Amino acid sequence: MRQRTLFTKTRKEAPSDEVAKNAKLLIRAGFVDKLQAGVYSYLPLGLRVLKKIEQIIREEMNAVCGQEILMPSLHPKENWQTTGRWDTMDDLYKVSDTSGRENALGATHEEIVVPLVKQFVSSYRDLPFSVYQFQNKFRMELRAKSGILRGREFIMKDMYSFHKDETDLKNFYDKMKKSYERVFERFGIGEKTYLTFAGGGSFSKYSHEFQTVTPAGEDTIYICDICHIAINKEIIEDQNHTCPLCGNKNLRTETAVEVGNIFELKTKYSAPFDLSYKDEEGKDQPVIMGCYGIGLGRVFGTVVEAYGDDKGLVWPREIAPFAVHLVEILSANIRVREETEKFYNELIGQGIDVLWDDRDLRAGEKFADSDLIGIPFRVVVSEKTLTEGKFEIKARATGEVSMVDRDELIKFIKSVKLKVNTDACPTL
Amino acid sequence: MRQRTLFTKTRKEAPSDEVAKNAKLLIRAGFVDKLQAGVYSYLPLGLRVLKKIEQIIREEMNAVCGQEILMPSLHPKENWQTTGRWDTMDDLYKVSDTSGRENALGATHEEIVVPLVKQFVSSYRDLPFSVYQFQNKFRMELRAKSGILRGREFIMKDMYSFHKDETDLKNFYDKMKKSYERVFERFGIGEKTYLTFAGGGSFSKYSHEFQTVTPAGEDTIYICDICHIAINKEIIEDQNHTCPLCGNKNLRTETAVEVGNIFELKTKYSAPFDLSYKDEEGKDQPVIMGCYGIGLGRVFGTVVEAYGDDKGLVWPREIAPFAVHLVEILSANIRVREETEKFYNELIGQGIDVLWDDRDLRAGEKFADSDLIGIPFRVVVSEKTLTEGKFEIKARATGEVSMVDRDELIKFIKSVKLKVNTDACPTL
Repeated sequence: MRQRTLFTKTRKEAPSDEVAKNAKLLIRAGFVDKLQAGVYSYLPLGLRVLKKIEQIIREEMNAVCGQEILMPSLHPKENWQTTGRWDTMDDLYKVSDTSGRENALGATHEEIVVPLVKQFVSSYRDLPFSVYQFQNKFRMELRAKSGILRGREFIMKDMYSFHKDETDLKNFYDKMKKSYERVFERFGIGEKTYLTFAGGGSFSKYSHEFQTVTPAGEDTIYICDICHIAINKEIIEDQNHTCPLCGNKNLRTETAVEVGNIFELKTKYSAPFDLSYKDEEGKDQPVIMGCYGIGLGRVFGTVVEAYGDDKGLVWPREIAPFAVHLVEILSANIRVREETEKFYNELIGQGIDVLWDDRDLRAGEKFADSDLIGIPFRVVVSEKTLTEGKFEIKARATGEVSMVDRDELIKFIKSVKLKVNTDACPTL
Repeated sequence: MRQRTLFTKTRKEAPSDEVAKNAKLLIRAGFVDKLQAGVYSYLPLGLRVLKKIEQIIREEMNAVCGQEILMPSLHPKENWQTTGRWDTMDDLYKVSDTSGRENALGATHEEIVVPLVKQFVSSYRDLPFSVYQFQNKFRMELRAKSGILRGREFIMKDMYSFHKDETDLKNFYDKMKKSYERVFERFGIGEKTYLTFAGGGSFSKYSHEFQTVTPAGEDTIYICDICHIAINKEIIEDQNHTCPLCGNKNLRTETAVEVGNIFELKTKYSAPFDLSYKDEEGKDQPVIMGCYGIGLGRVFGTVVEAYGDDKGLVWPREIAPFAVHLVEILSANIRVREETEKFYNELIGQGIDVLWDDRDLRAGEKFADSDLIGIPFRVVVSEKTLTEGKFEIKARATGEVSMVDRDELIKFIKSVKLKVNTDACPTL
């Protein structure tokens, strides 16, 4: 993409009412725009990141045989009354139409997915399976001050699994732990993200959160460095400050952001909707459920909090809006423009995403913007680099600079391999 | 995908409260589920169609240099008051939070996109550009009886363009007419879809709709077969029942569904938000706008209405959930399963989407389901076809059956070329 054509621009200052680091940097760099507290638009650069996050999750959910669907946001009051949450969920938005019919705006989708799948489940032969979606959630956060980490409106991947017994749920649940580890690894936050034991509510001893260590975190976790897992503060007393896996008492405290969570719902939502099946003997049995969430904006903001520095954003390669920021230093010599364009087309021809800064700005402004936008590799083309037959390449994360020729450069960028998931679901 | 694993099932009967042909067929075939009037879930087969519709639109919008963004659904009341539509738009959903703050649920996004782009537009050098999104719209349809043709909640592609003068808008607007023609052509409804002159409101003589002829249409259009254009009933009197292009008075009446529309907004929304730019002489000038919509569910339902028959759905190749329905006739001979699986993997290896009916059902039931689901090509594998070394291939649209060998079959399916748009935007 040619930067000249991009309708957004970078800004020197963030809006004064914005306090979160993630929102400040993302707004300054033109990735998002704030419509009101907790409600953001994704602009072209930001949407590219969001789509990459989405696609990584989709590949991994397909690999565990998840079936993608899309459920609506306007939920009949009756569904929420069936589970009792119409009256108990404080952050539920409620909307009436002029005929007096009441709806909830989807804050989560158990109330919709259970009656939906009930139409298709009658026998043990129909189980197990799982469905997932990418869909907006609406939650009435009265004080939304964490940028895109905590929104009134936000996109979530929510998956729901359906099983004939707890053993089958347990097997799938363990598979999902591994799936989530791959997802966060692919986002570039694997090392900072901990499988975290949290309270399970009335149905299970534990649920599990995935917590990413960053100073912006609203949660406190206790990390066991032996097992690379953590315990959420809410249950650390019950656990006697001890790792539930290895007994280690030497736990390290960190603040962290919850980027995902998985729950054994068991019969919590199948019971009120009477979601059951006939077992091998023809007897009715309740369907056993699990659910598995990842907030896409939450991940987006967490990566900014975890890696952004005083110069701006720093994107991991897998979810970066572009792989290369090609910065053209303006010159009276027409060859600079010609060679930049040629090289730009060559990179694109090699399947490499490039943002080409072809704007009429001074080099210093372009470099500052390049640091702010945070694309992994900055490649400078100038009269000097043309004369020398070398390009200057700088890694945003480390600041390391090298001079390389055209072939070395392309070979290097292509050598940074993106992880892919080759485990296709065996049955879909 | 193996049909055995799909969590949805076909149904013999549609729900009794469903009157629209599109919803009846789509629910019976397991493509959508009705949550309430005008509010549907997309199930795996349906979501595949929806994603193909989306991707075709995205390619074409990118080709005219549209920049994709994503705006939210929770809109501050103030934005809608600025245009006066908070009080005048009858079908606007309004929602309050417990602190008393009022929001509209996005029924359209002019109120959001104009203040958004205003932050980035100051000079004539910033123009022209266009932005688009795929996003839910919410409209309070009290009597939603048209299935997915008219929803309370529905996904729309809405594009907004910004220009320095009316000439530039006109040029882009004409480009969009051609772009939309390509889009509807690629959906497989090009021949049935007419560029239709409609009322332009207070700012233009005309707006233009794209109307697809089907008996389910809520609109009446007057077609000029010489120009392959139409006139909407609402302005046919003003037009003296005459084609505005060639003067033809011999117009043919049809019922049709509006699948897209384009408007010259001019300063209708830029004026209330004071969206202006400095021209070459440094004088303030209002930004001139256009907008361009396509309802994705509307297109989806229209294709069903236009092509569905008494046996079920009939998908054009470009937006079909799969290219091939591989129907395995159960046999005691283990070779049938083995050869089907081998062939299934071979087709997938060739990049062909396949739904493999591996369920334990009689041939008659499988054939009926195959007709209901409507995948373009049905390929039967049975003991008989193995013995003969030939497969039976049937085209869903025409019912035509041929016996072909493996190589001929693959060659034939690959020969049905999908249209692609190779016109990349020259500046993005």
